[in-house]
Amino acid sequence: MSLENTSVNKNFGGWTKHYAHRSTTLNCDMRFAIYLPPQTAKGQKVPVIYWLSGLTCTDENFMQKAGAQRMASELGIAIVAPDTSPRGTDVADDDGYDLGQGAGFYINATQAPWNRHYRMYDYVLNELPQLIEATFPVSNKRSVFGHSMGGYGALVLALRNPERFQSVSAFSPIGNPVNCPWGQKAFNAYLGKDSATWADYDASLLMRNAVGAVPALVDQGEADDFLEEQLRPETLEAAAKASGYPLQLNRREGYDHSYYFIASFVEDHLRFHARHLNA
Amino acid sequence: MSLENTSVNKNFGGWTKHYAHRSTTLNCDMRFAIYLPPQTAKGQKVPVIYWLSGLTCTDENFMQKAGAQRMASELGIAIVAPDTSPRGTDVADDDGYDLGQGAGFYINATQAPWNRHYRMYDYVLNELPQLIEATFPVSNKRSVFGHSMGGYGALVLALRNPERFQSVSAFSPIGNPVNCPWGQKAFNAYLGKDSATWADYDASLLMRNAVGAVPALVDQGEADDFLEEQLRPETLEAAAKASGYPLQLNRREGYDHSYYFIASFVEDHLRFHARHLNA
Repeated sequence: MSLENTSVNKNFGGWTKHYAHRSTTLNCDMRFAIYLPPQTAKGQKVPVIYWLSGLTCTDENFMQKAGAQRMASELGIAIVAPDTSPRGTDVADDDGYDLGQGAGFYINATQAPWNRHYRMYDYVLNELPQLIEATFPVSNKRSVFGHSMGGYGALVLALRNPERFQSVSAFSPIGNPVNCPWGQKAFNAYLGKDSATWADYDASLLMRNAVGAVPALVDQGEADDFLEEQLRPETLEAAAKASGYPLQLNRREGYDHSYYFIASFVEDHLRFHARHLNA
Repeated sequence: MSLENTSVNKNFGGWTKHYAHRSTTLNCDMRFAIYLPPQTAKGQKVPVIYWLSGLTCTDENFMQKAGAQRMASELGIAIVAPDTSPRGTDVADDDGYDLGQGAGFYINATQAPWNRHYRMYDYVLNELPQLIEATFPVSNKRSVFGHSMGGYGALVLALRNPERFQSVSAFSPIGNPVNCPWGQKAFNAYLGKDSATWADYDASLLMRNAVGAVPALVDQGEADDFLEEQLRPETLEAAAKASGYPLQLNRREGYDHSYYFIASFVEDHLRFHARHLNA
């Protein structure tokens, strides 16, 4: 399959579009969404922010619910939202919502049966940006943000590849996955029982030892049902304090884990990225 | 069933909430959504804009996809979004998406089997505002807006009840339902074959003979797939011209029938209503 445009909707003067393509990294057909701001119609190359969604999401949730296109239009920034895992009838899956399809955890799996398709880390770091930058009127300036599993994924990508991203932000990220049920279940399955291999995918452990520093913004709702068991933002704060990492973490009274929370603060995140992208 | 709060999400400093209740008008259980802006936490009574959704929608689509809460928060306005029809296993339905459940057309049905439950006109005009004004910190200043079937519903409500609404607006309304397939199918079923009874539910016919004048704003996408066969905004323009009705109708190049269109212009609509509500 070549790159196939499956939908286009004019939106705040720009275009929200969905595409399907064959991913060589994931060995399956994939979908992604892109918002192209109106500046691109005049041939201007704009920077790109990659959005990584959370458990059970697809390439659709963020574009439909976050309301981000308004500020992306104003600031002249493209947003790319990939799916959250490889997909398909021949792709390994699990009955749980937190493992398998819809739960790729932005990891390169090393364990069978997952290692045949589940290489979301390489996909979002390499294949997808190469495709985006070869296809659309965008520059090679990139930032990354995400929610929950995707917030953790964004932090891991930026912490391990500081030369690739100008800034990183997250809503309600899984701060310390090696020490929470979601992370332990996924890492056991995708990476195996040797937890020494897990550290490369733990934002708190990476931030504690960070050398290059991509500026980071995190927002966390205080009424989030997953706060204490799964997300543990205090681990990120302690790591940033230990290494002097440039992390701003905001706790928001009364907000939960939903897109209503994301929508309420997405303008702050886009303005933060725009400053670092010089957009 | 008394009024039951089924969900609450903090959102732009206010709260997006869903409720279930027993409707005496519709003779079934109903759901609606309400956005209460932050001003209500301090006891301030705010005006209300009623949102009427289009075919197949529920009380959820607008709150999740339109991004209206941001401006409602800033302007200090509540928004109420009812479901689009009576619902339930004992409520008459049809296999088509454009008749029966999800397609109430904001009509009081006179024909069996529809007349047992389908009284959406009375529900959104009387029962729902009475419930809202008795329950929440809102004033009795009201405006109404909607999309497609709901845009037509908003216009009909305001044109027939100018003393009840300060302003009315619509995205992509069905302008002249007595002369389009959606309207003819619904009116035949709900009102019967005597098309003389249909005129009370046709915005263009009502606007042509309007006496009291509720200021009206309409936005219509020029790339809307339903434009020529179903929506026909030129009939509204001709009616407004004939009666001198205060209608502003904007045609938007490249925009379609989706929520991406609504989201792009919802700020304009909320500011329009705020001016007339003195909010």
